[in-house]
Amino acid sequence: MSYETYFQNKREQHLDELKQFLTIPSVSALSEHKKDMIDAAKWVAAKLETAGLEKVEIIPTGGHPIVYAEHIQAPGKPTVLVYGHYDVQPVDPLHLWETPPFEPSIRDGKLYARGATDDKGQLFLHVKAIEALLDQENKLPVNVKFCIEGEEEISSPNLPAFMKDNADKLAADVVLISDTSLLAKGKPAISTGLRGLCSLEVTIATANTDLHSGTFGGGVPNALHALVSLLASLHDGQGRVAIDGFYEGVPELSSDMREEFLKQDHDDEQLRANLGLEALYGEEGYSFVERTGARPTLELNGVYGGFQGEGTKTVIPKEAHAKITCRLVGDQDPARILDRIAAHLESHVMPGARLVIKRGEQARAFNMDPSHPMLQKAADAYEQVYGTRALFTKDGGSIPIVETFSRILQAPVVMMGFGLPDENLHAPNEHFNLDNFDKGLLTIVAFLKQL
Amino acid sequence: MSYETYFQNKREQHLDELKQFLTIPSVSALSEHKKDMIDAAKWVAAKLETAGLEKVEIIPTGGHPIVYAEHIQAPGKPTVLVYGHYDVQPVDPLHLWETPPFEPSIRDGKLYARGATDDKGQLFLHVKAIEALLDQENKLPVNVKFCIEGEEEISSPNLPAFMKDNADKLAADVVLISDTSLLAKGKPAISTGLRGLCSLEVTIATANTDLHSGTFGGGVPNALHALVSLLASLHDGQGRVAIDGFYEGVPELSSDMREEFLKQDHDDEQLRANLGLEALYGEEGYSFVERTGARPTLELNGVYGGFQGEGTKTVIPKEAHAKITCRLVGDQDPARILDRIAAHLESHVMPGARLVIKRGEQARAFNMDPSHPMLQKAADAYEQVYGTRALFTKDGGSIPIVETFSRILQAPVVMMGFGLPDENLHAPNEHFNLDNFDKGLLTIVAFLKQL
Repeated sequence: MSYETYFQNKREQHLDELKQFLTIPSVSALSEHKKDMIDAAKWVAAKLETAGLEKVEIIPTGGHPIVYAEHIQAPGKPTVLVYGHYDVQPVDPLHLWETPPFEPSIRDGKLYARGATDDKGQLFLHVKAIEALLDQENKLPVNVKFCIEGEEEISSPNLPAFMKDNADKLAADVVLISDTSLLAKGKPAISTGLRGLCSLEVTIATANTDLHSGTFGGGVPNALHALVSLLASLHDGQGRVAIDGFYEGVPELSSDMREEFLKQDHDDEQLRANLGLEALYGEEGYSFVERTGARPTLELNGVYGGFQGEGTKTVIPKEAHAKITCRLVGDQDPARILDRIAAHLESHVMPGARLVIKRGEQARAFNMDPSHPMLQKAADAYEQVYGTRALFTKDGGSIPIVETFSRILQAPVVMMGFGLPDENLHAPNEHFNLDNFDKGLLTIVAFLKQL
Repeated sequence: MSYETYFQNKREQHLDELKQFLTIPSVSALSEHKKDMIDAAKWVAAKLETAGLEKVEIIPTGGHPIVYAEHIQAPGKPTVLVYGHYDVQPVDPLHLWETPPFEPSIRDGKLYARGATDDKGQLFLHVKAIEALLDQENKLPVNVKFCIEGEEEISSPNLPAFMKDNADKLAADVVLISDTSLLAKGKPAISTGLRGLCSLEVTIATANTDLHSGTFGGGVPNALHALVSLLASLHDGQGRVAIDGFYEGVPELSSDMREEFLKQDHDDEQLRANLGLEALYGEEGYSFVERTGARPTLELNGVYGGFQGEGTKTVIPKEAHAKITCRLVGDQDPARILDRIAAHLESHVMPGARLVIKRGEQARAFNMDPSHPMLQKAADAYEQVYGTRALFTKDGGSIPIVETFSRILQAPVVMMGFGLPDENLHAPNEHFNLDNFDKGLLTIVAFLKQL
């Protein structure tokens, strides 16, 4: 029986199972859901078992458990490590959900529930693809390992150490992840790059108390003046980051990459209108998709100090704060970037202002050459199912664990996403288009059979 | 009987009366105290009556009433208009008061209560000084009018219109106000200048929603970037305001004024240490007392936008806000200054950012020449009682009603304060040093007798 027919026959049963999975409120960020996390891990383990995988384990970590399973019966064939996560984002604001987040419901060909697309729905596709292959052919065309974590939405605090300690167990020829999106309906995409990240918090302190601007204004340092002039010095007037050495390790865009970006046929004007912007803005000489996909950036995410209430308060605030993140590309080293930012801030801070810098996250950028055979085979699989070849894109966001997989396992990572950009990830009314549910199963099967 | 003896004999009675006044919680800002406001106005009216003043009136306004009284029986003599206010500041945070704010208590020669020094205690001195003169001499050396309002702590919304409508009734040769402080214990001061004020709120808007810094960072305008670069452009690196024409109407400091400022013998190092500052800061070429007393300033009182919670949020905020006030001197016109700031902001705002400016308060600076005979007579009176001549100072703060009196009534204003700078005005444990209560009565009597 064709896989189309097979999945058609099983469709109702598959959706019922996925709905079960989606009723478990496995919110990793909230300690009240600790038991739900274990239930979700058990659910995944049981389904892997049923699918025919072996050595299924629920492995405790310092946080939520990791589910491991394998099927190593194809000697001489490549080994595929499937990564996914069974944890989900919190659901607030609850009142904006049209149906409750943990009561899955299908409307207009879309399955609504928290985790429907990120990542329970997409992870589920891999379990059912393996099950289908074993059902239909009694064997797998490749060796398969599953590594499913419960902490992706809280930055995977335990997975990197687990990976290092179990590098042999996890060793693979390719890491396969479905936790991203198509470019648009019917336009498959394979991300070959993710930006890295580093973050810091900046505090400027001047006095030991807030001061009256009548009595002291003009005669004492104002923490807000010091902060805004310091923050303004971080960019030049052409949209570039004005920190010495910030662009070290940033590769120039090759004409191949520029061509690949052009293929996305991105509608800048549509985006501008959708977001209500006067104009797009960024580094001169680059398009929007280049700026967000292949160029680093430094963003102020929060700035605050002094009076925020209604009306006027004639206060000179004693301190002021900023939260900053950078997105990194190429070989930019997050630790070195933080050093350079700190050096810039220290040398630009105005006299009379005390500067405190608190460093936060650090993650390197991830990059793969689109010509890698694994990526080409993934593109073939998409083409077979969607009738159109996947584009190779660069994502502006950061999934630090992808770079960690690639570095520790020394394996290519194929990000074979089946979501859509407007499926409300991390927001109310998250959903998963069932058209991509169906096509996703077929694409995974096609990919594994080609390896 | 000497006035010293007279006031000594009456001291207990006077303090009992003042304590009565201080038990009335006449907080003008809080509508729940509306009846207390009327009680306080009635109390003042009754005391003015008892003191021997005539035509005592409680005059309704759109807000809290004004108390008027007069004693016009000294033909050919100057007319003194005494201004004061019977309303007080709110008392929060209540738990920091050592004794309840409306249960006056005397400790260490200080009378503790909300309003003790600002302004019930100081206003009371004028009532009792007049009563003493009438008691002892059966007549007054001058003509006297009282104009006591109940809205000073909420910016006197009704008094300017009342003044305009009743300019003849209030006409005077000098306005006498006791609502300020000595420089320090035993160091009387007469303020000959108050800075003006103007305020505005600035909003920068970019997108119609907050955006993810991964997906959009580097490709769209960031409201915080636009705001900090705009705000940073408001000052140069030498502590000056960098707005075209800002200093128009600012008088150069005369050598006389500089000498007068020097006499204050201000301890910059002590102030720096007290406030926990690394260094004082301000316009080059001016001392601290000159910067705050005789130079204009533009202060950021509040700046906010984006994420303020714990940790990191990779957001590009859609809007950002700033609250700004200027202190003005000399002939700076607040409306014109607001125009100039707006023009600066509009011409410096970064492309892609929408600017919204909301204008707030406007008040002109107040200035008197210290050589004015009325001020010299006030200094004489202080010298007689305190044994040391009052210094002529400039206050950095703004009391807009002073400039309004001077402008509408075309009369000099003598700010004859008897408070001390550390008496916790507007704060918990407000108090009034009774030494200055005693000396204040004598100084007012001495002043009136000299006119």
